Amino acid sequence: MSMQQQLQEYRTCVEQALEEYVIQSADDRLKEAMRYSLLSPGKRLRGSLCLAACEMAGGTREEALPFAAAIEMIHAYSLIHDDLPAMDNDTLRRGLPTNHVVYGESMAILAGDGLLTEAFRAMSGSGNPNALKALAEVAACSGARGMVGGQAMDTSLEGTAPDKETVLRIHQGKTAALIRASVLSGMICAGADEEQLKKGAEYADHLGIAFQIVDDLLDITGDEAQLGKHAGKDAQEGKLTWVAAVGEKQARIDAGMHTDRAVQALESFGNRAEFLQGLAIYILSRVK
Amino acid sequence: MSMQQQLQEYRTCVEQALEEYVIQSADDRLKEAMRYSLLSPGKRLRGSLCLAACEMAGGTREEALPFAAAIEMIHAYSLIHDDLPAMDNDTLRRGLPTNHVVYGESMAILAGDGLLTEAFRAMSGSGNPNALKALAEVAACSGARGMVGGQAMDTSLEGTAPDKETVLRIHQGKTAALIRASVLSGMICAGADEEQLKKGAEYADHLGIAFQIVDDLLDITGDEAQLGKHAGKDAQEGKLTWVAAVGEKQARIDAGMHTDRAVQALESFGNRAEFLQGLAIYILSRVK
Repeated sequence: MSMQQQLQEYRTCVEQALEEYVIQSADDRLKEAMRYSLLSPGKRLRGSLCLAACEMAGGTREEALPFAAAIEMIHAYSLIHDDLPAMDNDTLRRGLPTNHVVYGESMAILAGDGLLTEAFRAMSGSGNPNALKALAEVAACSGARGMVGGQAMDTSLEGTAPDKETVLRIHQGKTAALIRASVLSGMICAGADEEQLKKGAEYADHLGIAFQIVDDLLDITGDEAQLGKHAGKDAQEGKLTWVAAVGEKQARIDAGMHTDRAVQALESFGNRAEFLQGLAIYILSRVK
Repeated sequence: MSMQQQLQEYRTCVEQALEEYVIQSADDRLKEAMRYSLLSPGKRLRGSLCLAACEMAGGTREEALPFAAAIEMIHAYSLIHDDLPAMDNDTLRRGLPTNHVVYGESMAILAGDGLLTEAFRAMSGSGNPNALKALAEVAACSGARGMVGGQAMDTSLEGTAPDKETVLRIHQGKTAALIRASVLSGMICAGADEEQLKKGAEYADHLGIAFQIVDDLLDITGDEAQLGKHAGKDAQEGKLTWVAAVGEKQARIDAGMHTDRAVQALESFGNRAEFLQGLAIYILSRVK
């Protein structure tokens, strides 16, 4: 099976888990708002990484499925809150009106809060013997030390002169942290040891940075149909992007370098790492 | 020791745990915004309930401390998000300017997200053998089925004619659910069995409703210094309160009835329930 077919298979698996996941609430509109963002078309990259990482470490994808679903919930909540008028004030996401445009600002805030909480409920009910350790990793990566911290830096520093170190730290928080959560929680579900987790973390950190640089490059070169959002918005708003910090040419070189290092990090896993290595190369290919 | 002395002791214990809790983030302003709301003066009722419930079920308060701290984080996040301009648009809370007034709207959203995530990190790192079960209970009570669901109903129905059943369901979600999380997570930390947890849930549900009815009554009778927030705001905004649904006289009767039932629920615990029973009576006494 090709890397792309495999990716499609993981994606279908994650989509199905999300479709089947029952959100209970006394408020129907809240449920609807949560499902709207959770089930809107997406690549399900983070969920797929989680399943693939579990298999690489010797587990089955079923073992990691509640974590893959939970991480997609966390991703969905972060997008809802990012798009709010007080944050990025985006009206279009993945080609659809953003949550607050459809449901109003207060319901969008609550839908985000609900998805974040539901993610932890899903993980706590997974039945995996390593659930608590995996959950702790996801919590650490998505909070003030990780994703939320990156968002806060991005917000605090918007409009300031881009400096390479600062942009790197924002990218590590905003993007790489949740990718790290995906890979590590998947591996922990499979019972991976500390040495293996170290390799997984190295892969995830470099993949996360490469992914964000590619995203920054696509923002200046892509069209709206491909992006599913308004193009060129980063530059307009003075966002701290890798391209703004080092220029387009160097950004392409750096994306390649981080991809190489991600691929190398998994060498000791041999054939089992084929999919995750191929995925890193595929992500890079979007801007080659 | 009197009930009030005991409450003060629990409160001090929770306050100290929160003071000592280290929030790590690359963004200093985010940390500051999170700590601002987490450490602002509060009764620490939920944290105290958690510690007391653990002791009632035969545990030590230390065993429940990470959960008491986590529930106070969840309470703090919910207040930050409730106060946002898109939600209740409150500028004063516990006598201090609300989070978004001090740190701006986008940072307040992120501070709330950060505290919610940090709560799950704190619980996952507690080391308690029953941590996963207790965490699952907290997640269920604070999400779409519980607190967030209650907030959503409150938002969806604001300005409509108050109906007793609807107001009860909102109160169950908005207030009682997190009180239930406090009591049950504390008891689970002590290794309580299902029969004991059923009694604890009954206590918490009645206490939560009584607490919210008392709050509704204080909103019409209290002064701002006592409340630490603007008085009479519920009525002004057409909030669905118990007083609006059944009238002041009946509300007082109902508060007494729910308090009685809370007290009765813990009878089988004998002397060990003294504090939690006394606390329910004390809460009622604020409007007697």
